Amino acid sequence: MKIPTQTEDFPAWYQEVVKTAELAEPSLVRGTMVIRPYGFAIWEAIQSGLDARIKKTGHSNLYFPMFIPMRLLEKEAEHVEGFAPEIAVVTHAGGEKLDEPIAIRPTSETIIWATYAKWLQSYRDLPFLYNQWANVVRWEMRTRLFLRTTEFLWQEGHTAHETEEEALKEARMILLDVYKESAEQDFALPVLVGRKSAAERFAGAVETYAIEALMRDGKALQAGTSHYLGQNFAKAYDVMFQGRDGTKQYAYATSWGVSTRLVGGIIMGHGDDKGLRLPPKLAPIQLVIVPIYRSDDERSGVLEAANRIKESLGSTRVHIDDREARPGFKFNEWELKGVPLRLEIGPRDLEISQAVIFRRDLSEKENRPLDQLTNDVPELLQDIQQTLFRQAVKFREEMTFRPTSYSEMREALADGGGFHTGGWCGSPVCEEKVKTETKATILVLPLDAQAAEGDCLVCGQRSAEQATWALSY
Amino acid sequence: MKIPTQTEDFPAWYQEVVKTAELAEPSLVRGTMVIRPYGFAIWEAIQSGLDARIKKTGHSNLYFPMFIPMRLLEKEAEHVEGFAPEIAVVTHAGGEKLDEPIAIRPTSETIIWATYAKWLQSYRDLPFLYNQWANVVRWEMRTRLFLRTTEFLWQEGHTAHETEEEALKEARMILLDVYKESAEQDFALPVLVGRKSAAERFAGAVETYAIEALMRDGKALQAGTSHYLGQNFAKAYDVMFQGRDGTKQYAYATSWGVSTRLVGGIIMGHGDDKGLRLPPKLAPIQLVIVPIYRSDDERSGVLEAANRIKESLGSTRVHIDDREARPGFKFNEWELKGVPLRLEIGPRDLEISQAVIFRRDLSEKENRPLDQLTNDVPELLQDIQQTLFRQAVKFREEMTFRPTSYSEMREALADGGGFHTGGWCGSPVCEEKVKTETKATILVLPLDAQAAEGDCLVCGQRSAEQATWALSY
Repeated sequence: MKIPTQTEDFPAWYQEVVKTAELAEPSLVRGTMVIRPYGFAIWEAIQSGLDARIKKTGHSNLYFPMFIPMRLLEKEAEHVEGFAPEIAVVTHAGGEKLDEPIAIRPTSETIIWATYAKWLQSYRDLPFLYNQWANVVRWEMRTRLFLRTTEFLWQEGHTAHETEEEALKEARMILLDVYKESAEQDFALPVLVGRKSAAERFAGAVETYAIEALMRDGKALQAGTSHYLGQNFAKAYDVMFQGRDGTKQYAYATSWGVSTRLVGGIIMGHGDDKGLRLPPKLAPIQLVIVPIYRSDDERSGVLEAANRIKESLGSTRVHIDDREARPGFKFNEWELKGVPLRLEIGPRDLEISQAVIFRRDLSEKENRPLDQLTNDVPELLQDIQQTLFRQAVKFREEMTFRPTSYSEMREALADGGGFHTGGWCGSPVCEEKVKTETKATILVLPLDAQAAEGDCLVCGQRSAEQATWALSY
Repeated sequence: MKIPTQTEDFPAWYQEVVKTAELAEPSLVRGTMVIRPYGFAIWEAIQSGLDARIKKTGHSNLYFPMFIPMRLLEKEAEHVEGFAPEIAVVTHAGGEKLDEPIAIRPTSETIIWATYAKWLQSYRDLPFLYNQWANVVRWEMRTRLFLRTTEFLWQEGHTAHETEEEALKEARMILLDVYKESAEQDFALPVLVGRKSAAERFAGAVETYAIEALMRDGKALQAGTSHYLGQNFAKAYDVMFQGRDGTKQYAYATSWGVSTRLVGGIIMGHGDDKGLRLPPKLAPIQLVIVPIYRSDDERSGVLEAANRIKESLGSTRVHIDDREARPGFKFNEWELKGVPLRLEIGPRDLEISQAVIFRRDLSEKENRPLDQLTNDVPELLQDIQQTLFRQAVKFREEMTFRPTSYSEMREALADGGGFHTGGWCGSPVCEEKVKTETKATILVLPLDAQAAEGDCLVCGQRSAEQATWALSY
């Protein structure tokens, strides 16, 4: 189970952690993956927090088919241009060639807005606040487990509103109250929030907002996007309603999504050279008990105590590792798998009613009295959740720069990545120049466009906005 | 919102209920459906109970890709023969023709067992107890919302075991402890459990078990199946392990699934001429409050009281219908939508601190003191859950027959369906004869094969088993 260090080779470290921690593996069709039970349990915990927030903010779940007639996809010009190269097409079914080819959804705006046209009559029907959990397919050329796979799992919200103001408010509410809050509170990852530049927008969007997290290699991971779509889809699919003034009006749209890519973000945002470090809220196992013994007699006494402890901990997710293997082997494996707490317990510990507890976040051991575990374990888990967040905030602070010149930014990007904030004139020419020369893109612009101090880092002209650049996954 | 009665035209009744109660609607690609929020919330409640039982019995969730190379499907001969005619095929992706066509999973035995071959080394790795929630595609010719759609949602469990005995035990445990228990306790539907005849088995199974529910039109609905697959898939995909005695052995398999078809079963198993009747455990809205008023003044007082009641009911799923519409209109709509309890409250009720409560299961109204609602509502919901189950049990008893001759069964089947139990010689010839002449199939055979009393209903020879025949969805 020897894995490369992060500094040696970060991509190799990632690949080995995903494999040896049994999170996922490549499947037979190019770019697809099997999400193994341990990896899937992390995704289920991510889902559960998100789903609760999506419902709490007034949305309901529903389900649209994954099959979309090709002709339907082609109605919104920008959208189809963005997605056409990535679409998988069904041409045969039931033993026959189909009259019309069927696209597998790369995202569902088209089928959903074609259906909203039937559901919407009057302003009284609005807003539509709907979400679905689904699989989608994008035929990407370069794939990587969790981060970019041809099929992936996600949630996609699609809302319809009476006014532009209301739709904009929705897109930002999702960004802040659902995505940012989940990132900080559940994933223990601080995120930058902001607008995307025109070049980085979702195909068909008027405005794209994103949350962006910093990975341990200094690169950014886009962890969620929320789009204000204006009336583009309403016009393409003829979704009109009778307004308060009696006139026919087009509805305003948002869409927003996060995906199994988040699991990759958790791995790369918290992991270290020993493997995963999981935030307790997402950990399939929060506490692993490793019994220490030399004889069968000792074994049964220790296992009995372990079971009592497990029972006393109620809703904490506890696993007792009673396999026949050396304790050291077990320690390494559970550290690799990122379990937040480990309890080591042997006959001598039992005699004095204590046990050794190991924190994965700090790599620290200490003794704790057995009779205080029901109190200490939940407290420790809460503390680990917060410590991981603080560590990630500190790392991001260390990796956030305000370069005074383009060459300074260029060198720093080549040196170790990080976030680089400075003026931008607003021209796609400067944006493209940075991308070509450094591979960095504009990660976010402030939520509300506002003039920045200083000149454009790239061309030296007066800056229109403050931009943050980074290398990105 | 006038719907046909069940006796007039049951299929039309079903279709109208699905449509007007806003459960689902056909989508653009043939045979696909949109599951609308109200219908999807029922599915989420079904899922939640099943998922808890699946996990409680030791299984973990994971996720396999929906794409399966065509050549892989072809390795288990019986299996591919059963499914080949229904498969949808992707031939183009990323703007190019693929070298090898890709099947969209009609079920996942093939890709899962091809992967288990990599995971399995030793008997110590077993059992594999895994489940996934996923969409699958079967290109059926005749489709009907929920009951048979080209894409549907389901869970599919796939387990691997060391011995035949253990695998058989698993297949039956799922049938009884997960499926039958969910049907009775959550869906309020009694089910027959048993074995399928060879003709009705899953393609590739050694033994197929099923739960079968009776619908209000006298037809049966297969509500879940659990298969013992023997070593068929282990042999096809070369899944071997080192056994306790050091020899290489093939693993034993089970698979089991239930789908969105269950929503159709809830509709047809409990519905009446006014529409749905939802078991409280599955009802998206358990109690609807309809405020009664004639003036704005009265309105605000009544709505305030309604909100207080809603708050006091904590975890009960309460909806206040404050739309501007006649109470009678609202009553009809919520009865159509099957809401178990309705509270009607007006100014005069408030004066004497009571309200009218309507039970959807019995179509009965009575007065209840407001200050006892926090106690009465949960009790009433529990009683409705049980009453619906008892009504369904009673209906099934009335519709269960022991015909003394084939002609008696034939007439009864033509007359109103129902379950018909009697001897069967075990020959496919008699089975086929009944199917051809009456459309009825053998629904179930007893879990354990045992000689039955009396002769074969069809041919009069000595019977080998007791069979139950019915018309089926």
